[in-house]
Amino acid sequence: MTKINKNISELRPGEKSEGFYLIKNFEVKKTTNGKQYIDIELVDKTGSINAKIWDYTKENEEVATDNSIVKVRGEVLEWNGTKQLKVNKIRGKLPNDDIKISELIPSAPIENEEMMNALESYIKKIKDEEIRSLVDTIINKYKDRLLYYPAAKKNHHSYLGGLLYHMLRMMQAGEKLGQVYGFINMDYVYAGVMLHDICKILEMDADTYGVVSDYTMEGKLLGHIIQGIKEIETEGEKIGIDREKSILLQHMVLSHHYEPEFGSPKKPMTPEAELLHFLDIIDARMFDFEHSLEGIDPGQFTDKIWLLDNRNLYKPMNNE
Amino acid sequence: MTKINKNISELRPGEKSEGFYLIKNFEVKKTTNGKQYIDIELVDKTGSINAKIWDYTKENEEVATDNSIVKVRGEVLEWNGTKQLKVNKIRGKLPNDDIKISELIPSAPIENEEMMNALESYIKKIKDEEIRSLVDTIINKYKDRLLYYPAAKKNHHSYLGGLLYHMLRMMQAGEKLGQVYGFINMDYVYAGVMLHDICKILEMDADTYGVVSDYTMEGKLLGHIIQGIKEIETEGEKIGIDREKSILLQHMVLSHHYEPEFGSPKKPMTPEAELLHFLDIIDARMFDFEHSLEGIDPGQFTDKIWLLDNRNLYKPMNNE
Amino acid sequence: MTKINKNISELRPGEKSEGFYLIKNFEVKKTTNGKQYIDIELVDKTGSINAKIWDYTKENEEVATDNSIVKVRGEVLEWNGTKQLKVNKIRGKLPNDDIKISELIPSAPIENEEMMNALESYIKKIKDEEIRSLVDTIINKYKDRLLYYPAAKKNHHSYLGGLLYHMLRMMQAGEKLGQVYGFINMDYVYAGVMLHDICKILEMDADTYGVVSDYTMEGKLLGHIIQGIKEIETEGEKIGIDREKSILLQHMVLSHHYEPEFGSPKKPMTPEAELLHFLDIIDARMFDFEHSLEGIDPGQFTDKIWLLDNRNLYKPMNNE
Amino acid sequence: MTKINKNISELRPGEKSEGFYLIKNFEVKKTTNGKQYIDIELVDKTGSINAKIWDYTKENEEVATDNSIVKVRGEVLEWNGTKQLKVNKIRGKLPNDDIKISELIPSAPIENEEMMNALESYIKKIKDEEIRSLVDTIINKYKDRLLYYPAAKKNHHSYLGGLLYHMLRMMQAGEKLGQVYGFINMDYVYAGVMLHDICKILEMDADTYGVVSDYTMEGKLLGHIIQGIKEIETEGEKIGIDREKSILLQHMVLSHHYEPEFGSPKKPMTPEAELLHFLDIIDARMFDFEHSLEGIDPGQFTDKIWLLDNRNLYKPMNNE
Amino acid sequence: MTKINKNISELRPGEKSEGFYLIKNFEVKKTTNGKQYIDIELVDKTGSINAKIWDYTKENEEVATDNSIVKVRGEVLEWNGTKQLKVNKIRGKLPNDDIKISELIPSAPIENEEMMNALESYIKKIKDEEIRSLVDTIINKYKDRLLYYPAAKKNHHSYLGGLLYHMLRMMQAGEKLGQVYGFINMDYVYAGVMLHDICKILEMDADTYGVVSDYTMEGKLLGHIIQGIKEIETEGEKIGIDREKSILLQHMVLSHHYEPEFGSPKKPMTPEAELLHFLDIIDARMFDFEHSLEGIDPGQFTDKIWLLDNRNLYKPMNNE
Amino acid sequence: MTKINKNISELRPGEKSEGFYLIKNFEVKKTTNGKQYIDIELVDKTGSINAKIWDYTKENEEVATDNSIVKVRGEVLEWNGTKQLKVNKIRGKLPNDDIKISELIPSAPIENEEMMNALESYIKKIKDEEIRSLVDTIINKYKDRLLYYPAAKKNHHSYLGGLLYHMLRMMQAGEKLGQVYGFINMDYVYAGVMLHDICKILEMDADTYGVVSDYTMEGKLLGHIIQGIKEIETEGEKIGIDREKSILLQHMVLSHHYEPEFGSPKKPMTPEAELLHFLDIIDARMFDFEHSLEGIDPGQFTDKIWLLDNRNLYKPMNNE
Repeated sequence: MTKINKNISELRPGEKSEGFYLIKNFEVKKTTNGKQYIDIELVDKTGSINAKIWDYTKENEEVATDNSIVKVRGEVLEWNGTKQLKVNKIRGKLPNDDIKISELIPSAPIENEEMMNALESYIKKIKDEEIRSLVDTIINKYKDRLLYYPAAKKNHHSYLGGLLYHMLRMMQAGEKLGQVYGFINMDYVYAGVMLHDICKILEMDADTYGVVSDYTMEGKLLGHIIQGIKEIETEGEKIGIDREKSILLQHMVLSHHYEPEFGSPKKPMTPEAELLHFLDIIDARMFDFEHSLEGIDPGQFTDKIWLLDNRNLYKPMNNE
Repeated sequence: MTKINKNISELRPGEKSEGFYLIKNFEVKKTTNGKQYIDIELVDKTGSINAKIWDYTKENEEVATDNSIVKVRGEVLEWNGTKQLKVNKIRGKLPNDDIKISELIPSAPIENEEMMNALESYIKKIKDEEIRSLVDTIINKYKDRLLYYPAAKKNHHSYLGGLLYHMLRMMQAGEKLGQVYGFINMDYVYAGVMLHDICKILEMDADTYGVVSDYTMEGKLLGHIIQGIKEIETEGEKIGIDREKSILLQHMVLSHHYEPEFGSPKKPMTPEAELLHFLDIIDARMFDFEHSLEGIDPGQFTDKIWLLDNRNLYKPMNNE
Repeated sequence: MTKINKNISELRPGEKSEGFYLIKNFEVKKTTNGKQYIDIELVDKTGSINAKIWDYTKENEEVATDNSIVKVRGEVLEWNGTKQLKVNKIRGKLPNDDIKISELIPSAPIENEEMMNALESYIKKIKDEEIRSLVDTIINKYKDRLLYYPAAKKNHHSYLGGLLYHMLRMMQAGEKLGQVYGFINMDYVYAGVMLHDICKILEMDADTYGVVSDYTMEGKLLGHIIQGIKEIETEGEKIGIDREKSILLQHMVLSHHYEPEFGSPKKPMTPEAELLHFLDIIDARMFDFEHSLEGIDPGQFTDKIWLLDNRNLYKPMNNE
Repeated sequence: MTKINKNISELRPGEKSEGFYLIKNFEVKKTTNGKQYIDIELVDKTGSINAKIWDYTKENEEVATDNSIVKVRGEVLEWNGTKQLKVNKIRGKLPNDDIKISELIPSAPIENEEMMNALESYIKKIKDEEIRSLVDTIINKYKDRLLYYPAAKKNHHSYLGGLLYHMLRMMQAGEKLGQVYGFINMDYVYAGVMLHDICKILEMDADTYGVVSDYTMEGKLLGHIIQGIKEIETEGEKIGIDREKSILLQHMVLSHHYEPEFGSPKKPMTPEAELLHFLDIIDARMFDFEHSLEGIDPGQFTDKIWLLDNRNLYKPMNNE
Repeated sequence: MTKINKNISELRPGEKSEGFYLIKNFEVKKTTNGKQYIDIELVDKTGSINAKIWDYTKENEEVATDNSIVKVRGEVLEWNGTKQLKVNKIRGKLPNDDIKISELIPSAPIENEEMMNALESYIKKIKDEEIRSLVDTIINKYKDRLLYYPAAKKNHHSYLGGLLYHMLRMMQAGEKLGQVYGFINMDYVYAGVMLHDICKILEMDADTYGVVSDYTMEGKLLGHIIQGIKEIETEGEKIGIDREKSILLQHMVLSHHYEPEFGSPKKPMTPEAELLHFLDIIDARMFDFEHSLEGIDPGQFTDKIWLLDNRNLYKPMNNE
Repeated sequence: MTKINKNISELRPGEKSEGFYLIKNFEVKKTTNGKQYIDIELVDKTGSINAKIWDYTKENEEVATDNSIVKVRGEVLEWNGTKQLKVNKIRGKLPNDDIKISELIPSAPIENEEMMNALESYIKKIKDEEIRSLVDTIINKYKDRLLYYPAAKKNHHSYLGGLLYHMLRMMQAGEKLGQVYGFINMDYVYAGVMLHDICKILEMDADTYGVVSDYTMEGKLLGHIIQGIKEIETEGEKIGIDREKSILLQHMVLSHHYEPEFGSPKKPMTPEAELLHFLDIIDARMFDFEHSLEGIDPGQFTDKIWLLDNRNLYKPMNNE
């Protein structure tokens, strides 16, 4: 029986399979007796599998070259304890195929364009012209990558569009808390949220699927906090923003991890910097709690979660 | 020139003064030559002053006995380096005097009855009948004292109605964040906020002006977290609440200080307990930041603030 | 050659074996061709082995049902790298078989009934009637489980009767030190020892062999210290014990781990609470030292012991 | 009215006083007009007072020279806000005066000769001849000073005979615990107690009243733990004690403070070293608790005690 | 008797005094009856004293206006417990007066021009043209202030020219250690020393006497480490220095305090950054030790020194 | 093809091999059928391999007995997954074979005799006769072992002659820094370097190839710092050195690890002790950095290095 659109992690040797996958890498190789074939790494949300198109054709190579998403039909084999997909048929995604890239890889629960629009509407809420202009400049500079960058290599929001999603939720939470704590200057809150992690884009090398291969040289030697401060300094000077405003934003970036051992040599000295820290940590923790409890039965505890100081989280029984 | 309603801290020897004050203590004493006089401690928001009514009369004693707020006219003297008020005239507050107790002592910025109403409307938002009933029972039990109790002996919200105000703001912030993080069970958030500090009423002895004289015996030996847990256990058993619900609420109280060295031997294991901790600390910090920056000129730093890890807070120049 | 009463850990494939074992679980199963057989898990102090009675008989099933301790004769096989015992003959322990359960599972070095008697004689030494009555009530409530509960899941005293043995030794040491430090109120010392860990019975799920399968829901969310405090509160109120006495005992339970990071948010504030902490830790350490040095040759060090901060203990040469 | 044997701290200007005091320092001085007088510092358990004998006589000087304890009659004056005693009559303590030095200065509650006898009887309990001989040698070497040395400059047992008293109580407690934990080698416990603090005699300079003026040069640069180790090494080599025994005793001294930050770079690696640590700390804590609660009313807390991590100790109401 | 050039700290009421002092502030004031006088604050290495020129003359005002160093003759009075100098005669320093500013205020032991020359000769030793050019640019930018800036507000090298002196000694020590550890790239060591603290000039406001009045706004919100990184980034970009070189220097500045809690969120990742840290701390410590032991007698300890973790330093007896 | 002098770690089953190796252990054994053979453990810098000489001859046994370094020809086999060398021919190192022991085992980069000479010339630089004599005595006492002892079991300088090399580099660096910080007493620096780790020889058991098998009993129970202090005390007393000098040297040894948790209960109280600490740590770190970066490509980071707090070190691109 042919399995349609079964997750890669669930494919079993001996089965036939048909479905949409993402091509991560591919290469035209030769067998020991000189015959050409195509070697492809296919991925979806649940894992990856090596696939072989033993009958090399120009057309097949073009399919692999031209497409990210392909529809594949084949048989699952086992080779030295590893699963392999013998491809019988492959074609590119057609316009009317009902499949999106976000269905194939781990990604934020909102479409990235939609998130970007929401973010930009928040930028418009900044009343101070200089601050708004600075934020606008920097966000635009990194906009392309912001559409797909994750917020981390591992841990919270480490998926496609994770950085943008993290920023958006912090924006929303910040806006809400600003309604309770009315003395807060929302311009700095919005700008701080927008800039606090933006240089993760420079700190980490990520591909367009939101997967971080490594930290960059500058990322390892300085880190995104320092990189972010330099970004504000440099772009602020270009724009000619009031010096105090630039420094206050730099201070917010500098202090947002709060503790020296987590990378912030200064503690927040303005209410907006203090709030930024809590917006950041609340969003990270809510993410971790929500995802850690996924798939846990009511009345059960999770295993120890290293990220959360080895806590075992509990999913209540009566939680309708 | 007679100073009308000058703050106590601003009275200067040699001045005449007339105004409303609060009587904290009073006593009928005798001079060395046997003459009776009345010795009174008057206070307002800014401090306290010893006052003497040298002409003892039955009427004056009754004024002091029957009133909290009095109108006093007198002269400011200095005696051994300490200011003293020689009272020439004293009467109780009349119905049409435009003065409220909250104008004379440090207190929450919202009237306590109004806060209590708001709190009760939040209780009604709890959907789970058992939880709502438990919260309702406990709040009612302590309602009288909740109207005036401060949230601390020193530090944040240590004034008349401070505990209630702290709870109300956390409620509001919790409600807002619940709109962003939709998977949160708001019943536990509302109940957790309501119960997390309620036993400060048992931990500290406070007078009706919101001033804590000392911690109670049980408060010192156990503390309000442990006292709160026992309260939930006992009242929960009386009501016959589902055992898991009771324990989850106890866990929220137990873990809300987050760190063992601040009194929480367990870290939060549910998202609601995690959020409760952040609602608590954000409200305390916003209070501290707002009040520490009062009276600071733009472009200036505060002195080092012990409560905030010796930070010097900054009030920006361009903060309209 | 048939091995008589060889430890399970020493059984080797190919050997015949005959001896007494404990039945931990058993089940009547069917082979793929529908034949019934009995599947048993046998344990002794050194480990466990799966056993099969391929010839199902009603009699054999009754033996497994009616007995904890059985005498088994069989052959040791190896199946997929795991040892298995093919049972040829099985019978229950007969009255004159010279074997006790404490010889088959790790357990305290004193019989549990004897320990319980000793404990009860200490309860009688409590002079204050209210305290004695409270302790008596709580110990009686948990007496059945106290006879076999271990003191921990892992670590010190984690064996059959370990909790009772731990309490008894602390009682003895407390009595002795009370002779040196005469100002100590022994009523609180005896009661404190009795109550400090009693709610480990509620914190952990243990079977009647003293093996902990897991912590309970309430155990994970609150822990035995908090559970113990609630126990004293509730039972104390029922008895109508003087409030200060109840709170002092609760304080002793609360503070007996001494350090916040080990679960005690308050440090001891009475001499008796202080002493309780040291009785607890000395007994745990003496246990760890004694057992860690078992089987070490004179003049040798143990390996690093994680429980004891990675120390290598030393067994002296000249220690006659 | 003449106050007889009133404590120094209670003398009031204008009173006459008569009683026994200890002479701490005295000096023959001259007034501005050349008249000789004697200036004396008198002390008792409660404090010290400056005294003047304005009529210099050879006899009075001899009284001050020849005696520690004197009987003084005089008047209490006040000079620049400080109390002073104008001496009218002074004589040395007579044989039949019923006063002991231990009544005038803070000291251990047992006579020092009695403590020393008790200690020596414990030395005889050491079965190993080499260890007994080593302990005997070292104790004899410091015996004279051990009779009066305090155990500390400040803190616990910082009074006349305090070191000896501390050792004695640890001996007693060690003997008792050895009856509970039978696997302990008591020879090492007794020797360890005897030697663990003996070099405080070399670490601190104390006068014969048990008052420490300062630490010695070697005391500051090395400390009594290191000094004690060297003492055992050196004396052990002289006696020709088995090397392992010497090193085990040195290890006990080295590890008895337990934590590196309190001076022990190694943690105990033998049960006897472990027990020594607990004997030491229990004796110190019991001392601190007992003395801190002296003079506290039932139902009251002490002030915060720095030595005990700022705890407020509690004296129960119902503690008969 | 007139004291010539006595230190301010040694002036006693009643004495006459004549000597050179530095004018810190001066003001023309009026007495209550309208008479003009000049109020001056005089300082030297040992302290400061208020001085009054009661006979106002235009000439005297010009002396105070035109000079830093003045010669003053007067009488020492005492006013409300504070010493005051009544000036009888005042004149400016004449060319042939043998007095230098460095004799009047705490300052580095080498003349600042000489130190600057030495520093510049080290810059020439940098072989890499880009690095040399960057260092040269930045040092020149701050050269004027570097001539007098202290290295700290309090603590080590907090005197005139202290920053320059600190850099010079580190240069010398770095050069020496480079001879032992030959694999070290000296270009980075020299550049790192030059740049590591250069932005203390932006972090602190100091006057030309090397006295810091306060930290700057940017200094408090960001700190000299972050400021230094931005300086290298900005100047490096202007020069067009190779990006890796710029980042390596920024990393050296970032990591030179080594521990997060001292301001370095990253630990050194190159040997040169590691060495820079040790050059910095050794120079600070050698300074502290040398100065703390000044004025201590051989065989004596200093008081506890807060800066050095409350150590008491020792000056040996036999230290010729 | 026969591999000549291939590293042991690179030998592959099936290859022939010929080269020089070190004999670590050898034994004459018998096969199950009674035939004698020689079993040898051969080592070089890269690892060890078991070798068999199946044809036992008296001559071959003598070769193994008489030589450390042998030349071996044989075949590499694989036996149960482990490589083994079947020896066809073996002979001792001949005088004109161009091979040194330092080529076969990890060792210091300078010949040990040369290092020892250098060390002795530093001893001659000590001006104080008593200190020089003490150092000379102790170094001579351990000279034989100092020639080959490593400085550690693992970590920095853990190879043949490592201890001596560590001392020599510290001497050189100390001499250099003494030129910058002229107030330092170099006698103590030289003596301190010489003595600070000398008792590692007593703390660890090492063979003549610089490999530590284990710590000694005294090493584990006391450690080289305490052992070094006793050494100075004992030898100092024999020589009759001035007591203060001895104690200052003991203090240097005691404090050279600086932090209590690293074994130093006292912090340095003299400038020389302070400097000794930094000489020690700098030499260790320079060693670690230099060796960790060996074999890393320019522009790359190392893996996380546990010894260096999990840092990833960076090797710059442009580091010619």
